[in-house]
Amino acid sequence: MAEVSFDYRNLTEVEGGVREAELDEIKPRLEDAAKELIESDLGFMQLPGTTRYAEASRALADDIRNSGATDFILCGIGGSALGPMALQKALNHPYYNQLSDRGGPRIHFAENTDPTTLGAILDVAEPESTWVNVVTKSGSTAETMANFLVVRGFLEDALGDGYREHTVFTTDPEEGFLKEISDREGIKTLPIQQNVGGRFSVLTPVGLLPAAVGGLDVDALLAGAAQCVEEVNERGAEHPAVVGAALHYLMDTARGRNVRVMMAYADALERTAAWFVQLWAESLGKDGKGSTPHAAVGTTDQHSQVQLFMEGPQDKVIEILQVENHPRDLEIPRAYEDLDGVGYLGGHTMAELLNVECDATQKALTEAGRPNCAIRLREVSEENVGYLLQALEVQTAVAGTLYGVNAFNQPGVEAGKNITYERMGRPGY
Amino acid sequence: MAEVSFDYRNLTEVEGGVREAELDEIKPRLEDAAKELIESDLGFMQLPGTTRYAEASRALADDIRNSGATDFILCGIGGSALGPMALQKALNHPYYNQLSDRGGPRIHFAENTDPTTLGAILDVAEPESTWVNVVTKSGSTAETMANFLVVRGFLEDALGDGYREHTVFTTDPEEGFLKEISDREGIKTLPIQQNVGGRFSVLTPVGLLPAAVGGLDVDALLAGAAQCVEEVNERGAEHPAVVGAALHYLMDTARGRNVRVMMAYADALERTAAWFVQLWAESLGKDGKGSTPHAAVGTTDQHSQVQLFMEGPQDKVIEILQVENHPRDLEIPRAYEDLDGVGYLGGHTMAELLNVECDATQKALTEAGRPNCAIRLREVSEENVGYLLQALEVQTAVAGTLYGVNAFNQPGVEAGKNITYERMGRPGY
Repeated sequence: MAEVSFDYRNLTEVEGGVREAELDEIKPRLEDAAKELIESDLGFMQLPGTTRYAEASRALADDIRNSGATDFILCGIGGSALGPMALQKALNHPYYNQLSDRGGPRIHFAENTDPTTLGAILDVAEPESTWVNVVTKSGSTAETMANFLVVRGFLEDALGDGYREHTVFTTDPEEGFLKEISDREGIKTLPIQQNVGGRFSVLTPVGLLPAAVGGLDVDALLAGAAQCVEEVNERGAEHPAVVGAALHYLMDTARGRNVRVMMAYADALERTAAWFVQLWAESLGKDGKGSTPHAAVGTTDQHSQVQLFMEGPQDKVIEILQVENHPRDLEIPRAYEDLDGVGYLGGHTMAELLNVECDATQKALTEAGRPNCAIRLREVSEENVGYLLQALEVQTAVAGTLYGVNAFNQPGVEAGKNITYERMGRPGY
Repeated sequence: MAEVSFDYRNLTEVEGGVREAELDEIKPRLEDAAKELIESDLGFMQLPGTTRYAEASRALADDIRNSGATDFILCGIGGSALGPMALQKALNHPYYNQLSDRGGPRIHFAENTDPTTLGAILDVAEPESTWVNVVTKSGSTAETMANFLVVRGFLEDALGDGYREHTVFTTDPEEGFLKEISDREGIKTLPIQQNVGGRFSVLTPVGLLPAAVGGLDVDALLAGAAQCVEEVNERGAEHPAVVGAALHYLMDTARGRNVRVMMAYADALERTAAWFVQLWAESLGKDGKGSTPHAAVGTTDQHSQVQLFMEGPQDKVIEILQVENHPRDLEIPRAYEDLDGVGYLGGHTMAELLNVECDATQKALTEAGRPNCAIRLREVSEENVGYLLQALEVQTAVAGTLYGVNAFNQPGVEAGKNITYERMGRPGY
């Protein structure tokens, strides 16, 4: 049972917050948006109830783990990397790749076309036991295909045609260049369902295969997400993820707060915030609309950005991601008890300090009249992360309806792509 | 000789950009601000010309490297971590900690009070050969001291009182709790000059010691920064770092562009952007003023945030950090030449693709009427990074004068701190 809760009190009760009357006014539109979401059978709402791809992902992950794989390189960018990275960061050991008893291969992400990064991955990977997972729905994403071609060469040098057995494509099952290559070379593929776009694809094999390779429980991820879908279907416009869409929309459009900060009070959720940045930015940033999602980490950013959040312009909403029970804890030993700026720490725990600081930041923001809200996870578990990701997707889709934009396209990236294709000599550009 | 250049054409020549008349109007204020910067002998402007702390840092780093240290844990937060992290990320191998021939200890950053992160560091560190570097000017930063107490216990379990020989404090040389502890226990210390604040401290031993421990050339870092200081002293309000302060100030205050994006087209500079976020946010975010610094990475964010930058609200300025010659390159092998969406990539290099995409994004932004600018580094070298960091500090200090705020304090973080101290039982709170 996922345990994720939403707390919007500091958005509605602070001065300058959203007023009851405004929420009442937008209620009919919100209800329509929720109804549309529920009734239109969107691909991403069906994913949690679809278990066969989880089974296929887990089976293939088992094969990879049992093959003695030392390295698993995911070539993907945007939605094809951010979801997988968010899951690993949230749910695996922070130094997973350096553990000797990790039980699976090291996992590397080649998302950028930066030769320094890919070169470093290839410096540490063992070519005979490296697998590559190429993730692109279209099968022609330039950055991903460039990374793939380099990794393919690296494997081919060691394995000859055997590189084919160490390659997995996650792509459109019906069309595209990866489909074509897999047909020719007999390369294993997992599907990205056609009605699911990249930034909503974390619960397709895009996210499920690397999660399973890393030893995560993909069934629990889907179960948490399924619980969210079920609750949204039941509660409609009353579900807090949906209510949040209205609040953030009003904060931007009626209050001029064009920056939406997501501040995670757990290093494990830092990449979840990065995943959300794409989701919100690329879904809503069009037609001159869309607030700017901005990621932060607590306590770290208390010593970096909180000054701006507290005393800068009133142009932000701060959303805190809080974890009640951290996956591990460390007691702070007693020492220097006569030094009053140090001694008080002994006997407390690190997690206690982290959560006290989280509460203190929310209180300080509220007292300074800075609108803020919180999403609280009982713990960082597969179920809760699955619920959270699904809830944020729901919120984004509903916000798209409120903004009156198509949340599922990204026309603004075509111009840059076309210039790149032309300069790189792609036929037809 | 550092080679860093600034290109503001796409801020002044695009529609909605800053007009010549506006620049002329602000000129006298900019000249005053530059004069104030140059004449007031600010601490951070003197650092590049001060070599004795670089020598002390290097000597201590040599001792650490020669001692057979396997792990070096830096406990610090905000300016005490962001600068050191930026230098390592920019100038060291991306998988430095995993290399067998790295020549120095693994370097770990314990910046947050997250037990999951610190626990993971302690899972991989070898206690008999671990060193800890505690970095806090005041000597009482709660997060840093909590991390220190835990690491101290970890070392004490293995080394008894010998932990003292493996500990280095980087702190105020005259006062504070760390000074007190070092006097009692004979712990090695390096100074943070009293006239330098945390976010301007990267070229004090705060940044220099970990840089030297990681094998970086700290003299070249300082030389690059010194070149910047010299050029600023010579050119005053004509220096492009100073001119940039006026442009960004005007874009915010006269054009309502309250989001300042720094988009690094090199993974190596991702943490430099994170360092800059603190510098700009904490220096300027006060009295209801200050634009929001927002970090992005190219090409990665072309598939995440560029949709918003291209078609979202006209509330941003995009600053690109571009690298002309990347430190290494990889040729993209020829393959699938009959598939027109793949085959064109073969024969190009990864760095070429990265730079073509960088140019394409700038062109696409400009053609869409989206103000943007660029800072170009000939390569990612110690000299160029030193120059860049110093230039951004200059720009921030000058922007503080234009905004009319004190760029060197951070009063907005006290409220949260006080609530934390009270709840944790610190005497006097």
